[in-house]
Amino acid sequence: MKFVLTGATGFVGAHLHKYLQAQGHLVATIGRGFSQSEMIKTLQETKPDVVIHLASCFIAEHKSSDVDNLIQSNILFGSQLLEAMKITDCRTLINTGSTWQQYKGIRNNPACLYAATKNAFEEILKYYVSAENFNHITLKLVDSYGPEDKRGKLVSKLIESLVTGQCFELSPGEQKIDLVHINDIVKAYEVASSTLVQTSHKSLNTTFTLSTGQAISIRDIVRIIENISNQKLNVTFGAREYRKREMMDSEVLDPILPNWSALITLQAGLKGLIYGH
Amino acid sequence: MKFVLTGATGFVGAHLHKYLQAQGHLVATIGRGFSQSEMIKTLQETKPDVVIHLASCFIAEHKSSDVDNLIQSNILFGSQLLEAMKITDCRTLINTGSTWQQYKGIRNNPACLYAATKNAFEEILKYYVSAENFNHITLKLVDSYGPEDKRGKLVSKLIESLVTGQCFELSPGEQKIDLVHINDIVKAYEVASSTLVQTSHKSLNTTFTLSTGQAISIRDIVRIIENISNQKLNVTFGAREYRKREMMDSEVLDPILPNWSALITLQAGLKGLIYGH
Repeated sequence: MKFVLTGATGFVGAHLHKYLQAQGHLVATIGRGFSQSEMIKTLQETKPDVVIHLASCFIAEHKSSDVDNLIQSNILFGSQLLEAMKITDCRTLINTGSTWQQYKGIRNNPACLYAATKNAFEEILKYYVSAENFNHITLKLVDSYGPEDKRGKLVSKLIESLVTGQCFELSPGEQKIDLVHINDIVKAYEVASSTLVQTSHKSLNTTFTLSTGQAISIRDIVRIIENISNQKLNVTFGAREYRKREMMDSEVLDPILPNWSALITLQAGLKGLIYGH
Repeated sequence: MKFVLTGATGFVGAHLHKYLQAQGHLVATIGRGFSQSEMIKTLQETKPDVVIHLASCFIAEHKSSDVDNLIQSNILFGSQLLEAMKITDCRTLINTGSTWQQYKGIRNNPACLYAATKNAFEEILKYYVSAENFNHITLKLVDSYGPEDKRGKLVSKLIESLVTGQCFELSPGEQKIDLVHINDIVKAYEVASSTLVQTSHKSLNTTFTLSTGQAISIRDIVRIIENISNQKLNVTFGAREYRKREMMDSEVLDPILPNWSALITLQAGLKGLIYGH
C-alpha cells in the first residue's frame, strides 16, 4: 500500500514509519511546516491509498501561551491536510484520537484543552466526511510505551530511574492506565488501513479504541517492574498531587479495532525494555 | 449590566452595541486584532457581567485559501477569548451559533466548513464549561435582516433591486428561510444575558434558537415585497443553481429562547425597510 503519514517524527509516528516500510509499503511524510500547496504536491506525487494523521501537540496542562500552538497544531494543520486531500481526491484517512477526549468515561468531555482540540478537529472532519465523501477510521489511543520513547512518559522514566537509581516523584499512583506496546500499535494502523481500503465503497466512518482491555494502576506497574528487574525502584508515591483532571481510569467507549488485539503482555513488553531486547 | 462584545463591527454586533448602550448598559469591545493580553486588559478594566461572542467569519462556500482564515477567526480567536476570560475570572458567556451547523436537521452535521468551525469551537467551549466552571448560553441564529445590512444578503439585495430596477439572479427559490428582524435579535441577547446572570449559580449551559417559528420560501418573500411595494421585482428564478449543500429548510432543534419571541412580523419588517422607517 501507499501511505502519507503526518507526525512521523513523534514516538508513534517514527515507529509506524519504520514498520510500514519494513512491511514493504511506500511511505511519504507531511511535516508540520508544510504549506497547503506542499501538502498537495506530496499527495499528488504519492497518490496514497491511506493518509495517516498522527501529528499532534500534546500538553496535559496548558498555559495560556499554549492556546495558539494547540489550535494551530491540532486543528489548523489537520484542516489544511483535509482540504489538500479533497483537492487531490485522496479521501481515505486514519485519524488519531485519545481517551483523554472522554474524561470520566463521558463522550466529548475533554480532560484538558489538548483533548478539546482533538474533539474540535473531529467536528471539522465530520464536514469532509459528510460533504466530501471522505472515508475514515479514528483510532483512539490509550497509553503507549516502547523503546526510543523520548516523551518523558511514566514507563520510560521508571526504567530510567531503575538504571540511574535517581529518585522519581510520583502522584499517589492509584490511577489506572492501559499500556499498549508500540509494536502492537503500529500493527493496528496497518490493520485499520486494510479495513479502510477494502470497505471504502461502503463508506466506513467510525472510531475504534486500541485497548488491551486491562488498565493497571501505576502502583502495580511499579511492582511489576520491581519483580522483573528484581530491584527496588526509588520512587516516592504522593510526592506530587494528581493533576487537576487526572484520568483515574481508562474506560473504553468505542469498540476495539476488529481483527486486532494487543499481543505483547505488559510483562513481556517491560522485560524487553529493561533488558534491552 | 456590563458587557464585553466581540464582532461589534458586524451586522448583528453593530446593532447590538447601539441597542445595549441605548438601554443604559456599559459596553466594551474586543476586536479581531486583539492579542490575548489586550483581551485580558479589556476584561480586567470592564469586569463584565456577560461576554457576548459574536465575531465570526462567514463563508458559505469556501475556497482552499479560506481554511486558515476560518480556523483563525472562528476557533482560535474564540479560544483565546475563553482563556482570557478564565484568567480574569469572567466566566459568563453568550456564544453565537447558526442553524447551518445542523444541515438537514441533523445535529453536528455542518452545511459548510464555516458551520464545522462553529461546531469545533463549541467543543473547545465544552472544556471551559466542564473544567473551568463557565456558564454559557449559545444563541443559534437563523436568518437576520434589518437596516444598515452590508452583508449582501438576500433581503437587502431584493430591496436594492426594487430601487435600482437592476436584475437580480436567483436560484429556483424553493428554499425556506426563517427571517428574524435585527431589533428582535438584539433583544434576545439582552434577555439571554439577564437569564445567565440570574441563574449563574445553577450553572446554565444550553443552546436556544432565535426563530420566528415560521420559515418562508424565497419565492414567497419576493411576493411579499412585491405586494408591499406594489411593484414588480426584476428577479430571475433559476438563473443560478442551488448551492452544493443548500439549506432548504430551517429546522429548529434547540428550544426557542424563553421569555423572548420575535415580535416584528416579516410584513412590518420589510415595510420598514422599503419605506425607510
